[in-house]
Amino acid sequence: MEKQEFERQLSAVREEIDRIDKQLLPLFLERMNCSEKVAEIKQQAGIPVLNAKREQEILDRVREEAGGYGGSAAALYSAIMAVSRARQHQMLVGGGELRRLEQTADRSMKQSDVRAVCQGVPGAYSHRAALRFFEAPELVFRSTWKEVFETVKSGEADFGVLPVENSAAGSVSAVYDLILRYRFYIVGAVGIKVEHCLAACRGNADIKTVISHPQGLSQCSDYIEQHGLSTVEYSNTAAAAKFVAQERPDGTAAICSEEAAEEYGLIVLKKGIQNAANNKTRFVIISQKPVLPENADKISLCFSLPHITGSLYNVLERFAIHGLNLTKIESRPIPGSNFEYDFYLDFSGNIHTPDTLDLICALHDELPRFSFLGNYREA
Amino acid sequence: MEKQEFERQLSAVREEIDRIDKQLLPLFLERMNCSEKVAEIKQQAGIPVLNAKREQEILDRVREEAGGYGGSAAALYSAIMAVSRARQHQMLVGGGELRRLEQTADRSMKQSDVRAVCQGVPGAYSHRAALRFFEAPELVFRSTWKEVFETVKSGEADFGVLPVENSAAGSVSAVYDLILRYRFYIVGAVGIKVEHCLAACRGNADIKTVISHPQGLSQCSDYIEQHGLSTVEYSNTAAAAKFVAQERPDGTAAICSEEAAEEYGLIVLKKGIQNAANNKTRFVIISQKPVLPENADKISLCFSLPHITGSLYNVLERFAIHGLNLTKIESRPIPGSNFEYDFYLDFSGNIHTPDTLDLICALHDELPRFSFLGNYREA
Repeated sequence: MEKQEFERQLSAVREEIDRIDKQLLPLFLERMNCSEKVAEIKQQAGIPVLNAKREQEILDRVREEAGGYGGSAAALYSAIMAVSRARQHQMLVGGGELRRLEQTADRSMKQSDVRAVCQGVPGAYSHRAALRFFEAPELVFRSTWKEVFETVKSGEADFGVLPVENSAAGSVSAVYDLILRYRFYIVGAVGIKVEHCLAACRGNADIKTVISHPQGLSQCSDYIEQHGLSTVEYSNTAAAAKFVAQERPDGTAAICSEEAAEEYGLIVLKKGIQNAANNKTRFVIISQKPVLPENADKISLCFSLPHITGSLYNVLERFAIHGLNLTKIESRPIPGSNFEYDFYLDFSGNIHTPDTLDLICALHDELPRFSFLGNYREA
Repeated sequence: MEKQEFERQLSAVREEIDRIDKQLLPLFLERMNCSEKVAEIKQQAGIPVLNAKREQEILDRVREEAGGYGGSAAALYSAIMAVSRARQHQMLVGGGELRRLEQTADRSMKQSDVRAVCQGVPGAYSHRAALRFFEAPELVFRSTWKEVFETVKSGEADFGVLPVENSAAGSVSAVYDLILRYRFYIVGAVGIKVEHCLAACRGNADIKTVISHPQGLSQCSDYIEQHGLSTVEYSNTAAAAKFVAQERPDGTAAICSEEAAEEYGLIVLKKGIQNAANNKTRFVIISQKPVLPENADKISLCFSLPHITGSLYNVLERFAIHGLNLTKIESRPIPGSNFEYDFYLDFSGNIHTPDTLDLICALHDELPRFSFLGNYREA
């Protein structure tokens, strides 16, 4: 067939599609109007928005009537009902406690006399993160995440600095668990480029062995391989630097940050020995007191859903409707449950924007185990 | 207003909705028919399915015509177009190399004379995972993930056993990176309950100090706190047991698995000292040779999307249409890119099911950086 003939056929079908859309769209808008009426009646009667039984009946009917397109039609209707539920929630102006929080929380971070607590030892990457986020903080160091939370809870520190991604100290969910348990807020975040160096004691240049955290070793695996070095594991990159400085083992260097090398008086033999593809470690700043800065640009939420597929795509649709972009999503099975999941989401946005506040308040009312973790500036 | 009056009003609106749906659904089905015609024409003409310009034009028009419902209408249409694109891809029977893989790969795992390589030391949880998955494997141990891959690549071992969740050794993405780099397959998975014990040398019952990996310590933080123990960090729980057995430090116990205690001849002073809420660590079995067992029930994929919100919910919709449940989702920014993400997904399913194979082949053709990581039995 000629190219022209294909194009003629294509535009004929497309005209048909446009004709269908001319009828389909007004029907959808009519349906949305009906949803608003339902919302008004439910509001007056004090009936909840979600009527799972009625939704299931509609889905079953649609699936049956659509025959071979059953799955597609059910997906379409599930989307339509999510949109109309969203509209109803928007009209109900829910999320009472969240609305109060948005009104009452501080709108700027404390900047002077900041006392912060880091997980790790001086020279660790969390140390660098704290210095990137705060101008001249008074710093203390704790060895476990829980101790960081306890130090903030006791009032000994205003803020805690904890790694949440690509970190040697554990996975993001453990930090989120603690934030939820302590009812703290994320009030800031900062990405730190992981740059490892080879550091040893003065006069110890012929290096045969390197010592570091297993992740430090694997992040420098190309360099280690090229130079035929043997490896020793240690609990922490900065602690490895401290060990090398104190014990002065023969022919041994630490793999650590430059700050750690400096902190423990080691000579930097070689900078930037990490593999090329390595990326950043992200740290969050946590606080007992809510702060919702005017210039915040990231929102962290946590909630649960019974089944990932259907329900998750309906929730994500809501973000899409508001033009908000997700920047992180992570699922995690709820311990002891069958196929129920907690989700950790970060998305771009500011809670002082009315539309965004409405969306989060609606989700707050709709979703089980919903927690607003914070709205902050990503540095 | 009376309850009866509310119900009368509600059912009036619902009748209106049902009336609208009676017109809306046939239009949607007509539209799907048109999509099939488009698919046929495109197939004959060798034109790709996605026409981003035409889709954007439709979205813009719909958004404009829908006025105050612009966002909702655009979301609806974006869903409709995803469904119709899915249908077109299904008709095109794409995914050539994946279809070949599904035909040619082994359909059962090697069961006798299995040689497996674990990350860690004897007594580590990966050791237990290997014994749970294989009947009587010949085992070797390597200290880094990369060495595990190298051992499999060289043919020294048939399978590798690596932790991918809740693990001390790093995050799931590092294992996925290596699987992609080595072009290996996930051929099995097993969840191991983390059960820590307090283990010391004989005659060393008055314990003041515990030594373990930082995550082992934090997983037992309640016990440690209740008994006022001081803590020392070590690179690995099983290595901590080995250290205690060799150095016999006074008043010091290791926090490790029972297997590790046994392996290094320590006395178990107390079992099950982990905090209540602790869950499982998941291990995957990797192989250079593809295996797609008849009874496989989980599929792992990795792909990239330009924007999470819109595109992700369209992809998830496709899984929903096929009735497949996601069991894991994780996003990860692509290093060096702006707002582009890689996604790691696990979902229930068997690639030998024609519908499922069609879906994966369609995604294979549609999504950038798509990788099929494996279809295996979750033990």
